[in-house]
Amino acid sequence: MIIIGEKINGSIPKCGAAIAARDEEYIREMARIQTQYGATYIDCCASVNENELETMEWMIKLIMEETDLPIAIDSPDPQCCVDAMPFCGDRVGLINSVSGEGNKIDIVFPKIADTKWGCVALLSDDTGIPADVEGRMKVFHDIMARAEEFGIAPDRLYIDPLVETLGANPDTLETCCELCRLIKAEYPTIHIAGALSNVSFGLPGRKYINIPFMTLVMAAGMDGAIMDPTSRDMNGVMHATEALLGIDDYCMDYIEAYRENLFGPLNRD
Amino acid sequence: MIIIGEKINGSIPKCGAAIAARDEEYIREMARIQTQYGATYIDCCASVNENELETMEWMIKLIMEETDLPIAIDSPDPQCCVDAMPFCGDRVGLINSVSGEGNKIDIVFPKIADTKWGCVALLSDDTGIPADVEGRMKVFHDIMARAEEFGIAPDRLYIDPLVETLGANPDTLETCCELCRLIKAEYPTIHIAGALSNVSFGLPGRKYINIPFMTLVMAAGMDGAIMDPTSRDMNGVMHATEALLGIDDYCMDYIEAYRENLFGPLNRD
Repeated sequence: MIIIGEKINGSIPKCGAAIAARDEEYIREMARIQTQYGATYIDCCASVNENELETMEWMIKLIMEETDLPIAIDSPDPQCCVDAMPFCGDRVGLINSVSGEGNKIDIVFPKIADTKWGCVALLSDDTGIPADVEGRMKVFHDIMARAEEFGIAPDRLYIDPLVETLGANPDTLETCCELCRLIKAEYPTIHIAGALSNVSFGLPGRKYINIPFMTLVMAAGMDGAIMDPTSRDMNGVMHATEALLGIDDYCMDYIEAYRENLFGPLNRD
Repeated sequence: MIIIGEKINGSIPKCGAAIAARDEEYIREMARIQTQYGATYIDCCASVNENELETMEWMIKLIMEETDLPIAIDSPDPQCCVDAMPFCGDRVGLINSVSGEGNKIDIVFPKIADTKWGCVALLSDDTGIPADVEGRMKVFHDIMARAEEFGIAPDRLYIDPLVETLGANPDTLETCCELCRLIKAEYPTIHIAGALSNVSFGLPGRKYINIPFMTLVMAAGMDGAIMDPTSRDMNGVMHATEALLGIDDYCMDYIEAYRENLFGPLNRD
């Protein structure tokens, strides 16, 4: 699984306060622990109303000093995303994100066309989030046509099918799994990475919903996630699901992750 | 999900010691807590070398006094199973189990034919556990032919596909899911109930394997399990999986189980 570690995000109250106070150590610590727990990318989202680019520069610099992992530059403003790319120097990362909305693709795709940067693409457009699979597949096909135009190979794209909350959308699992199957059938090398915890919004005991949802979408072909890798239960079930699905031969990665104390009882004799 | 609560079993060391010491309170407590955690049946397995029937009578009497739940009479000796049926009085339960092995079916099916008792049936025979799906489906068809002969309807049968350990059988999930799909397609009203925790035998962090295995076999059609209902994480993920699969409208059962404190943080404000 490709894990885009979500813990450095100004919309999380504690992280927002740390950003406002320019608390370097908080950002560094979040970069360190996500690295330790096996994140593939460190997401970096300022979530501020003013000075977003300047804040992004400060955050990216700190993350770069603490970890060798690539960064996912996360902003609703595509111009901010591309303007922040130089802060990463030679380290190739992800833009998070484009969608079929407005001129996002026109701003991002030309800038990453001749690079190795990847890009998260949400299956929404100017009409919002299409309710059904057909509507989202139409957005997907529009995005893929633009990617081809700019020579961006499918394996550089991370499709976010848009995980809806189970409480309001009883079909959320079915919709998400069907999108995974259809997209992977068309483009076997593409990545699919959803924000898993959205599924449990508003319900009690959220991790109990997030965990089987992750397992079932992985079985349907999702190979990435925007998630908190330091959630030990999610981490353990993710490794176990890979072992059950035959992605992890002889449970080697599962056993290794257990030995590295990435899940299971924290204190061991 | 139909839960056959597995905690009263003499092969569990603590329970075996309680049986040897004729510790009434231990058996009563195991019956009570499994009832509280939503078990459908209380499994009762003496696992003793001598006086099995007498031990079974003592155990069943205690369970009957503590709970109104039906009992799954569990013994490798089919004669002991049928001889213990009268201890349950009018309370209709399950025989656990028959298989294609020896004369088990000849002993059990005639005794339950004209009753409402159910029966767990394992997909093994005199050759052992067939390695592949085809071999187990042959055993299944042989068992169904015998059930029909005795007028035992499919909805009284609980097929145990025989869950093998992932460590030694990389295909265990695939085999189990394929069996669930084939069996349910042929007999939509039949029940499928495996001993889930077998999958993780010999691996560290066993519950991390058991949890996604349960989720994936439920999605394939397994509607029962021989398991420990007091395992709060298993219980929570079971309810969440039902909600995700659309078995639990509006997450009503999930929310109710959370409110009843069957999973999630034990101590709440």
